[in-house]
Amino acid sequence: MLKFTPAISLLALATISSASIAAGWQALPETAPAPANNPTTAEKVELGKILYFDPRLSSTGTVSCNSCHNVMLGGEDNRALSMGVHGQLGGRSAPTVWNSAFNSVQFWDGRADSLEAQAAGPVTAGVEMGMKNWDDVVARLETIPGYAIAFKSAFGEKAIISKENATKAIAAYERTLITPNSPYDRYVKGEKAAMNNQQIRGMNSFSQTGCTSCHSGAAFNGPTMPAGSGFYVNFPTFTDSPYVAQYDLLKDKGRGEVTQNSADDHKYKIPVLRNIALTAPYFHNGSVKTLDEAVRVMAKVQLNKTLSNDEVADIVAFLNALTGEFPQQTLPRLPASSGQTLTP
Amino acid sequence: MLKFTPAISLLALATISSASIAAGWQALPETAPAPANNPTTAEKVELGKILYFDPRLSSTGTVSCNSCHNVMLGGEDNRALSMGVHGQLGGRSAPTVWNSAFNSVQFWDGRADSLEAQAAGPVTAGVEMGMKNWDDVVARLETIPGYAIAFKSAFGEKAIISKENATKAIAAYERTLITPNSPYDRYVKGEKAAMNNQQIRGMNSFSQTGCTSCHSGAAFNGPTMPAGSGFYVNFPTFTDSPYVAQYDLLKDKGRGEVTQNSADDHKYKIPVLRNIALTAPYFHNGSVKTLDEAVRVMAKVQLNKTLSNDEVADIVAFLNALTGEFPQQTLPRLPASSGQTLTP
Repeated sequence: MLKFTPAISLLALATISSASIAAGWQALPETAPAPANNPTTAEKVELGKILYFDPRLSSTGTVSCNSCHNVMLGGEDNRALSMGVHGQLGGRSAPTVWNSAFNSVQFWDGRADSLEAQAAGPVTAGVEMGMKNWDDVVARLETIPGYAIAFKSAFGEKAIISKENATKAIAAYERTLITPNSPYDRYVKGEKAAMNNQQIRGMNSFSQTGCTSCHSGAAFNGPTMPAGSGFYVNFPTFTDSPYVAQYDLLKDKGRGEVTQNSADDHKYKIPVLRNIALTAPYFHNGSVKTLDEAVRVMAKVQLNKTLSNDEVADIVAFLNALTGEFPQQTLPRLPASSGQTLTP
Repeated sequence: MLKFTPAISLLALATISSASIAAGWQALPETAPAPANNPTTAEKVELGKILYFDPRLSSTGTVSCNSCHNVMLGGEDNRALSMGVHGQLGGRSAPTVWNSAFNSVQFWDGRADSLEAQAAGPVTAGVEMGMKNWDDVVARLETIPGYAIAFKSAFGEKAIISKENATKAIAAYERTLITPNSPYDRYVKGEKAAMNNQQIRGMNSFSQTGCTSCHSGAAFNGPTMPAGSGFYVNFPTFTDSPYVAQYDLLKDKGRGEVTQNSADDHKYKIPVLRNIALTAPYFHNGSVKTLDEAVRVMAKVQLNKTLSNDEVADIVAFLNALTGEFPQQTLPRLPASSGQTLTP
């Protein structure tokens, strides 16, 4: 179990050792915690949902949060790399928005310490939504009369349209995107027929292989950390596998790109495994098309284990049991554009 | 009233003369007629809605029907020209999907004789959704197991995924996209307080100016025609206005591009005016940003009339009374991709 030691800081290791042992199998909570400065309210969630689906938050008026983090799908776009304005490609595969409320940090490299901070990023990223800056975003939203009303409804009569309020609303909406009652959850809560024999075998293999060393907790995204603190693991850990070159796993420096500290190179936060069957292709670079290959590669490059085809099939069956129930949502009505909203 | 004669064929003229006189002011029907070979069913509507929102119907997996015909907005994208895969621009401004069921033909140039025929077009248009052909679309959908089930549910146990069934389902969904109970509708049905005085003045100006010569009927899109038969009008009719150059109104040959008959040059079907306040910018080329300027230009280039600012303001107030009630819809769940669905 300690084979991955070199990849993890000692402080983190102390945390994971106790966390993964103590945690056991946990069902997904039905609500997510909200920060003290952004309590979840129905009005904020409604505004956030509208903003989330509004393509007018992008320079071209064609890309919304939902374009790459599609809540109608598994919370992302099923592409290797996401595609932003003018057909530009992003650098990494879009992580799912579903259950992202259970991440203590956001983005593959953990560079945002909250959902609020995350929501601010893609809007002004050149290859994503392409707005020049948030002043322009606010000015754009101010041309849409319905937004002034919705911001007041969410944040009070004196509230204005601002980056802070917009990102708070989007984060409040995202905190409602939770998928409880997967076969795994029902099994863990005592409904023994909720998983079939292969899925139960896979659950045991998942644990015995060592996957739970990192993929622990209710969302299978690692030990519980204080909000804003990341838990990072090297990927790949065992770099001598042929998979490393085959799937180009060392090209991206991961967290090292953020900190510019070589000790952080190739470290990533541990992604949520909930609904993983819906989010092919896999890994930060979307290089692996299928879940069975992803399992095989992870076992090899993280745990130095070669799984049999049966073990892979069992673990994949178990991962399919992590697909939860998606809450029914209404399609939002976006407030009307004025003729000045989108200028070429 | 006969000033527009040169622009309209004699047969069409006979139709419009009787139609526009007899029609009067009509409320919007709450249901749309369906063709005999595609009766509307709940299962078909559900499948059609899923297909309508599914970006995997495009080559890149990023553009759905809803991208350019956004039902969360006024049924289009508020862009002058729509943007398809790889950021490519289309040749015309996207018409609204709301109430398109009341058009006897589809597209600005009427080149599709049904919603079914229309739905087939953009999917394989290079600058729109960019699929090579419908065989590829069907092959793509076949990689998504949930679609096989949904097609059988909509079309019967022996049904297969096909272009014909996909476009039938999309059309069935679109036939449900109707916005009744606008202030105008309530006014026409006898609720006299539903429109204010300015809107009532505008309604009279709209008629007396001659707008109803073309924009007649419940959807303000012209005389009732048999399904599949278009009613086409020259735009612009009075080509000596400076507006013609200012807004580049003669560059596009309209229906002439389809028939390659110069007698059809610059003819268009009459667009729906329902929810027109939501769909800036205006005209086939999206060249006019605001509704007041659109009204001013239309009066001049179609009827050779120069409206006062007050008349323009009144007509715009009336057009705002054509914004209807948008039926609440649930957000569809799109069936899960396999790892082979989107290959780079």
